[in-house]
Amino acid sequence: MCDTCGCHISDGTNENIVEVHQSLLAANREQAEKNRHHIESMGAVAINMISSPGSGKTTLLEHTLDRIGDKLKIGVIEGDIETERDADRIRKKGVPVVQLTTGGACHLDAPLVHKGLHAIEDQADAGKFDLIFIENVGNLVCPATFDLGEHVRIILVSVPEGSDKPAKYPTTFNGADIFMITKVDLLSYFDFSVEEAEKEALRLNPGLKILQVGAPSGLGMDDWIFYLKELIIKDR
Amino acid sequence: MCDTCGCHISDGTNENIVEVHQSLLAANREQAEKNRHHIESMGAVAINMISSPGSGKTTLLEHTLDRIGDKLKIGVIEGDIETERDADRIRKKGVPVVQLTTGGACHLDAPLVHKGLHAIEDQADAGKFDLIFIENVGNLVCPATFDLGEHVRIILVSVPEGSDKPAKYPTTFNGADIFMITKVDLLSYFDFSVEEAEKEALRLNPGLKILQVGAPSGLGMDDWIFYLKELIIKDR
Repeated sequence: MCDTCGCHISDGTNENIVEVHQSLLAANREQAEKNRHHIESMGAVAINMISSPGSGKTTLLEHTLDRIGDKLKIGVIEGDIETERDADRIRKKGVPVVQLTTGGACHLDAPLVHKGLHAIEDQADAGKFDLIFIENVGNLVCPATFDLGEHVRIILVSVPEGSDKPAKYPTTFNGADIFMITKVDLLSYFDFSVEEAEKEALRLNPGLKILQVGAPSGLGMDDWIFYLKELIIKDR
Repeated sequence: MCDTCGCHISDGTNENIVEVHQSLLAANREQAEKNRHHIESMGAVAINMISSPGSGKTTLLEHTLDRIGDKLKIGVIEGDIETERDADRIRKKGVPVVQLTTGGACHLDAPLVHKGLHAIEDQADAGKFDLIFIENVGNLVCPATFDLGEHVRIILVSVPEGSDKPAKYPTTFNGADIFMITKVDLLSYFDFSVEEAEKEALRLNPGLKILQVGAPSGLGMDDWIFYLKELIIKDR
């Protein structure tokens, strides 16, 4: 069975699908390495944001840009199946942004992000950046298998989604650097156990950094911004 | 480009992927038709439930079973990438249930559901049912392309996810029969426009039936139960 979404049916009707899929992932990996070099040549660190639809990726970005958008050179690559909505929201913050639409696919891939890098490069002074955020398609499964050339991968789970998500989506958590619990100002309204979510996430991936954020209320945002600044300093 | 998840990268590196994927979908469709006949031979109507992770599919099922689990013969097929958690929750309600785990894939497929049908058949009196719920893997993209043999397809979007979801996931809404907005008792805490969500969903699919439910509080549950009963009566 191939280890990602949509590429097989469970009775093994198509044996050659695994082979085709492996070559597809190899081609993606190759482009991802090129993207990483490309991003570094732009002076930047790139962050790949993965979550279910509606976990608050765009909202986190909006509030992050409100805090540091005028201090750091930030670019945003937005991924969606359809619509320009997220890019429209980010554009209002006055930073270089591009909307990539996958036309059906449930994840970004490295060749598409390569186009995105050129698009934001064209919008920036001398093509230089400190941070590039790549907001993946809202999906907790498919994006996990596709390296985009990022340096940091962050998985967001919002409080309304439930604390069982790490256990249910182990591959996604295995490959992440940060686990961010979002909408934490709503904890009293939901049956969400922070302890359960964190424990399970760390069991899957002991190296995970965990953050708790409620972006609109500002809860936990200082830690997040501190993390981003540290990331840039380390990169220098 | 193939019209579902994960089966290509965007530079077209693998031309044969479309062909392989088409044959995979054809094999799935064939098994789905067999499943539909199988379900009808069990006396049942089957409902395929699709949503993001944490939209409230299992919670809706729990409250549905509390209301009609002792009046109707109901079976539940649970789909997840990993874990038996959802089946464990449903098992407490005393109805036939099976957990299908996809081992990585982001959707159920017809051959897997075929196994699930046999598993719940073995748990029921004379193998007969009124309703079979199939709770798909939490994902708003991949499950849309895979017919499981269901009679009704329901898409759930919860209030915390945001009202832009129909516009962002058009394929998923195109293929649905019911659009259910869940967690509506939380409307006052979120910037969710019921009008926007419903208008966009109906633009994509004018035949959609729309329901608003807050299962734990009971809000809208009468309409949902009425719908289910009508469905069974029509089927007789």
